[in-house]
Amino acid sequence: MSLPASVRIVEMGPRDGLQNEKRLVPTDTKVELVRRLEGAGLKAIETTSFVSPKWVPQMGDNSEVLSRVLAQAAAGVAYPVLTPNLKGFEAALAAGATEVAVFGAASESFSQKNINCSIAESLERFRPLTEAAQAAGVKVRGYVSCVVGCPYEGAVAPQKVAEVAATLLEMGCYEVSLGDTIGVGNPASISRMLEAVMKRVPVARVAGHYHDTYGMAVANVFASLQMGVAVFDAAVGGLGGCPYAAGASGNLATEDLVWMLDGLGMATGVELDALVDVAAWISAELGRDPASRVARAVLAKRAQRATTPAQQ
Amino acid sequence: MSLPASVRIVEMGPRDGLQNEKRLVPTDTKVELVRRLEGAGLKAIETTSFVSPKWVPQMGDNSEVLSRVLAQAAAGVAYPVLTPNLKGFEAALAAGATEVAVFGAASESFSQKNINCSIAESLERFRPLTEAAQAAGVKVRGYVSCVVGCPYEGAVAPQKVAEVAATLLEMGCYEVSLGDTIGVGNPASISRMLEAVMKRVPVARVAGHYHDTYGMAVANVFASLQMGVAVFDAAVGGLGGCPYAAGASGNLATEDLVWMLDGLGMATGVELDALVDVAAWISAELGRDPASRVARAVLAKRAQRATTPAQQ
Repeated sequence: MSLPASVRIVEMGPRDGLQNEKRLVPTDTKVELVRRLEGAGLKAIETTSFVSPKWVPQMGDNSEVLSRVLAQAAAGVAYPVLTPNLKGFEAALAAGATEVAVFGAASESFSQKNINCSIAESLERFRPLTEAAQAAGVKVRGYVSCVVGCPYEGAVAPQKVAEVAATLLEMGCYEVSLGDTIGVGNPASISRMLEAVMKRVPVARVAGHYHDTYGMAVANVFASLQMGVAVFDAAVGGLGGCPYAAGASGNLATEDLVWMLDGLGMATGVELDALVDVAAWISAELGRDPASRVARAVLAKRAQRATTPAQQ
Repeated sequence: MSLPASVRIVEMGPRDGLQNEKRLVPTDTKVELVRRLEGAGLKAIETTSFVSPKWVPQMGDNSEVLSRVLAQAAAGVAYPVLTPNLKGFEAALAAGATEVAVFGAASESFSQKNINCSIAESLERFRPLTEAAQAAGVKVRGYVSCVVGCPYEGAVAPQKVAEVAATLLEMGCYEVSLGDTIGVGNPASISRMLEAVMKRVPVARVAGHYHDTYGMAVANVFASLQMGVAVFDAAVGGLGGCPYAAGASGNLATEDLVWMLDGLGMATGVELDALVDVAAWISAELGRDPASRVARAVLAKRAQRATTPAQQ
C-alpha cells in the first residue's frame, strides 16, 4: 500500500459547519472556536463566509469574526473565507483576508436551483474576483460541489467534475476541493470521479471534501489516499449536519479523519485528544452531543477511566 | 480495482446485538426480528447464544427462540447459534441447530479475563464440541476476537491471529470470522492482520467482523474487499453498542455495509429499503433511534418526501 506520508486538513467547522446550524452562534463563540482549533494543531481553518446576511444570517458577523481572528493570527495558519461574489471578496479583503474560496457546482440543476445560473455562467462570474485576488496577492481555493451526485438530478458525470475543476485552476485557484455535497459517494464512485479529474488536474492540486451522510466519508478518504490525494476537508464534531436531509450526518468529523490518518501513520500536525476537547466544547455550546464516533468513543473511554482508575 | 463480485453477510443482530442490550427483549420480538431479517434477504442470521443464563440473562430463552425460528425456517437461510462449550452445543442440538459457532481470542489477557484460561486451553476445550458437531453433521463457524487490539493489552500480533484462525480451521470450522472486538482497527492494521492470516488460511475461509467504535468499520471492509475477503458480519441498526465503552458504537450496522456494497456493485441479496425498515422497527422496540448513518439518512429522506411530494 503506497499512501501519502502526510496529509493537510482544511477545517470547515466555523464556516461550512456553523453555516448550517439553526441556532445563531455568538461571535465570541465563533472566534473562540477558531482559537481552539488552532490550539489542536489545525493549520487551515475556513473562518467564515462573506455571503449576504439576508441569505445566511448565521454568517452576518463575517467581518467582525475575520478581523478578530486575524488580529491574533497564529503563525503558519491560513484562515480562508468563502466569497461567493466580487462584493463578498471586497468585504473579505477589507477585513484583512489573505485567502478566499470560490465554488462551482458539477451539476447544472444544482447550479440553477442554488444560484440561478448555469455552471459556465457561475464560473465566469468568478473571473473578476480571481483577477482582483491575484492583483491583491490573495490566494484562492476552489470548491466543486455535487461531485458524484446531485439532490436534483442524481448521478453526476465524472467528466463534468473534471471540466469544472480544470476551469477553476485555470482561473487561478491553487487547489480544487471536490465536494460530495450530499454524501452519496462510495469508494468506487469517488475513485471513478478522481480518475477523470486527475486526467486534467495534477493530484497535488486536488482535495477531497466528503460528507458522511451515509457513513462513507472515511472509506472515501481511504480510497482517495490510495490514489495519492493528500488534502482533505472536515468539520470538528461533524458540525453542520446535512442540509438536504434533516437528522442525517453532514461533514466528515475532523476527529474521525485524524483518527484514521493517525492509524495509517500519516502526519497531520493535529493532536487528537485536543481536537476531541474542541468537539466536546462546541457541541456543548450548541446544546448537543458530538456527532462523531471517535469523539463519542474517546469521551466514553475518558468517563470510564474517571470512574475506574485502577483498571488503567 | 479488483473486488469480489458478491458478498455474503452474516447478520449478528439477534445474537451479538441483543446480547449487549441492557433491556430484556421479549422472545416474540427476537423471533420476529429473525423473520424480518429473512424478509430483507439475509441468508445467514446468528439467532441466539447457548451461554449460561446466569452469565447472559438476555439469551436465557435461547432454546425457545431457536426452536420457533427453525419451526418456520426459510429455504436457504442458515441460523447459526453461538455455543461456548459442549453443554451449550448439546442444548443447541436438542433445539434443532444445524450450525453453531465457537470463539477464541487472539489476546491472552482477553482470554484470561473473559473465560479464565489461556487461548490454547480455550481452543482445546472446543475440540470435543467440534468433534460432536462433525458427528452430528452440524457446521461450525469460528470467531477470533481482538484481532487488532485488546482492551487489556493493547496491540495484538497478526501472527497470533493467524495461529488461532489456523487452529480453528484445523479443528473443523468451515470459516473463521476475524473480530475487531473493540473497533480500534484501521485499514492499515486490518490489512497487516489479514496478510498474516492469509499466509496460513485461504481467503475463501475468512470473514471480517469489524466494530464501528471509531467509525472505521466500512473503511476496514473496503480494505478487506481489496484483499479478496468476501464475507462480513454486521448487525442491523448497529445493535449492541460497545460493551467496552458505554455510549460508543459497536457492531457495524448491516445497512451501512449493504449501502456500500450496493454502491460498489456487489451482489448481497439484501434489499436495503427493507433492511432500513427492520432497523427502524427494532430500534423503536428498544426505545431509541437507529444508530446507523444510512438508516438515519434514508429515514430522513423518506420523511422529507412525505412532506414535499412534488419535489421528488
